[in-house]
Amino acid sequence: MLILSEKSQNMPASPIRKLVPYADAAKKRGTKVYHLNIGQPDIESPKAVLEGLKNFPSNIISYTHSEGTLEYRQALADYFTNRGIDLTPENFIATLGGSEALLFIFGIIGNPGDEIIIPEPFYANYNGFTCENDVNIVPVPSSIENNFALPAIEEFAKKITDKTRAILICNPGNPTGYVYSKEELNQLKDLVLEHDIYLIADEVYAEYLYTEEEFTSVLSFPELKDNAIVIDSESKRFSLCGARSGALITRNEKFLKAAMLYAQARLSPVEISQYIATLAHRNVGTYFEDCRTEYLKRRNTLVAGLQQIPGVVCPNPKGAFYCMIQLPVDSAEKFAIWLLESFSSNGETVMLAPGAGFYSTPNSGIQEVRLAYVLKEEDLVRSVEILKEALEQYPGTIRS
Amino acid sequence: MLILSEKSQNMPASPIRKLVPYADAAKKRGTKVYHLNIGQPDIESPKAVLEGLKNFPSNIISYTHSEGTLEYRQALADYFTNRGIDLTPENFIATLGGSEALLFIFGIIGNPGDEIIIPEPFYANYNGFTCENDVNIVPVPSSIENNFALPAIEEFAKKITDKTRAILICNPGNPTGYVYSKEELNQLKDLVLEHDIYLIADEVYAEYLYTEEEFTSVLSFPELKDNAIVIDSESKRFSLCGARSGALITRNEKFLKAAMLYAQARLSPVEISQYIATLAHRNVGTYFEDCRTEYLKRRNTLVAGLQQIPGVVCPNPKGAFYCMIQLPVDSAEKFAIWLLESFSSNGETVMLAPGAGFYSTPNSGIQEVRLAYVLKEEDLVRSVEILKEALEQYPGTIRS
Repeated sequence: MLILSEKSQNMPASPIRKLVPYADAAKKRGTKVYHLNIGQPDIESPKAVLEGLKNFPSNIISYTHSEGTLEYRQALADYFTNRGIDLTPENFIATLGGSEALLFIFGIIGNPGDEIIIPEPFYANYNGFTCENDVNIVPVPSSIENNFALPAIEEFAKKITDKTRAILICNPGNPTGYVYSKEELNQLKDLVLEHDIYLIADEVYAEYLYTEEEFTSVLSFPELKDNAIVIDSESKRFSLCGARSGALITRNEKFLKAAMLYAQARLSPVEISQYIATLAHRNVGTYFEDCRTEYLKRRNTLVAGLQQIPGVVCPNPKGAFYCMIQLPVDSAEKFAIWLLESFSSNGETVMLAPGAGFYSTPNSGIQEVRLAYVLKEEDLVRSVEILKEALEQYPGTIRS
Repeated sequence: MLILSEKSQNMPASPIRKLVPYADAAKKRGTKVYHLNIGQPDIESPKAVLEGLKNFPSNIISYTHSEGTLEYRQALADYFTNRGIDLTPENFIATLGGSEALLFIFGIIGNPGDEIIIPEPFYANYNGFTCENDVNIVPVPSSIENNFALPAIEEFAKKITDKTRAILICNPGNPTGYVYSKEELNQLKDLVLEHDIYLIADEVYAEYLYTEEEFTSVLSFPELKDNAIVIDSESKRFSLCGARSGALITRNEKFLKAAMLYAQARLSPVEISQYIATLAHRNVGTYFEDCRTEYLKRRNTLVAGLQQIPGVVCPNPKGAFYCMIQLPVDSAEKFAIWLLESFSSNGETVMLAPGAGFYSTPNSGIQEVRLAYVLKEEDLVRSVEILKEALEQYPGTIRS
């Protein structure tokens, strides 16, 4: 019989993508859709990248070393060294975006049924990548009331069993925008060392912080030499989402050796993408400062707008470019579909990512949505207007 | 404890890549290495691709739809339609090279412990991708004596159990260069229909045949509508190995739906690569004919040369651009390492892919190596000279 595997039947639909067919249909009807659902910045990729494409130095688009080109890994090592974290090219394995790094990591550390503890809500696609590897997520709920700060460390400790392989954090947080303090990270450090498990950190938004606090990478703790694994990517850092360039970073040599076998099985990451990512790093100039200034303005505009809408709960995110907000509706997913199927304001609507997909605890995040502030300020202002109007019209809006 | 998963510890080293550190060391010593180990053509990517890179039409390298752009999937559909196989864009999911298509397929059809029957020798990285999915390969040995033709269909039938999910073939064959006849494919078709299992065909070398016989895709059998799944890629077809562009193709709607969840989890394939692959398809001109003419010359030169070396068994491959040959040595892997570590002929040596990695039956292919004829004729002539000289000097050569 032609079967589909159990894990493929359990694969969750990505909340960032599952409503795309509704959006496509809306666009076909002539409706303009503001994409708040996905972290696809409208900010230009660096000039050096666009110029670089015009001057690609080879007439053959070729495989590279499976672990990535030395040029790319050296550029990454220098980038981290500049941030005060001493690494060499040997600590990096280039991957097809942060996504492939996650896929490798879950496969390498988890036997079927093993557990990864993650504060929730978390980046939705962790659900998919763990499912593909028959690994289970054990969530530790954080709360919108305190901006999704790290839950009490005892809550993590309580969840540790002999199946626990790692604690995974996203810092700055997608979808929460929360940035963990050094103190919070110290607590996690002590806990993973006590149990000798991995501390995996998805730090792809490390450049985008809007507070005075400094960013702390898990790679900056020397005690975590063998425990810390970081997911890195140029997708958001340089507005290169479509390049699928990223890396897995660790000082753990056994882990690197295992990851190398995964990398060799798929032969090579993308040559062109490593080339342009290297150019971006080598010609960074004021790109990060410029983006930060822009994202900060956008955040302030979006958050101020959202906080004006009756019934909306919107924490002020300290980093990344997402808000996880609570809406006064029966079901955020139904509302998001209704926005695309049944609503338009002067021929325009917004696309949201339903919050439930960012949780693994059943019936969590039902009223929440994730918004990405990767659109121009005027588009965000308009999106807030649309959302406000939609909430006034939506039949499932809960009025207090 | 910081563990590595069982499957990651069982991951086989890719025979195509595992000797790279030896090659790097040889190059550091100043030795020139002819790479016969990997199917990385020295043929230029199409002009339309190189021009296209100079005119990339966007200033933001962006995510595309998870299943790939409509432009790319339409170009693929048209390409297959031109080959007499009627498909629509909905039958394609764009992947990160053929590699990701394989990874998706094994995850979607196999529960842990399920079995995929594959004639052996087979493309080595099937071992890695099945291992990552806890799926087992059940090999059916083919023989160098009859050019690795399809083993008797009864041999396949004998291996079918209730754990069998699919038969997988590579056609034209990597590493064998064998091209399955319509008759052979008919036998496979009847068998998979009898047991209602999948017939997976890796057809990435479909353009490269050097016989009068026509190529038969498993997609050309209407009876296999739900059973046939094809792996496709532009890597070899257009000398675009470093683009990581490819696709998974099927008319099975349930399978496509499952694959879509896998595709959405990693958000997007590479935007630039889909763009250049589309350009390659839309401006194909005489590219395939030119490449075929060139590869045919190379094959003839390489095979004639190899057949002159005493003790070497070299079938004449009908397609793709590989030869799987038998060497008169104690261990082809030891010999391949010795070539890189301890041998040079006027400062030059060759890199080979040891044959054992293309088998899953233990102790098979010990004397075999795979050679790719993707280098210029003069380089192939020189490589054969080096190989001949090396076999005369290698301490483990078996003299008859």
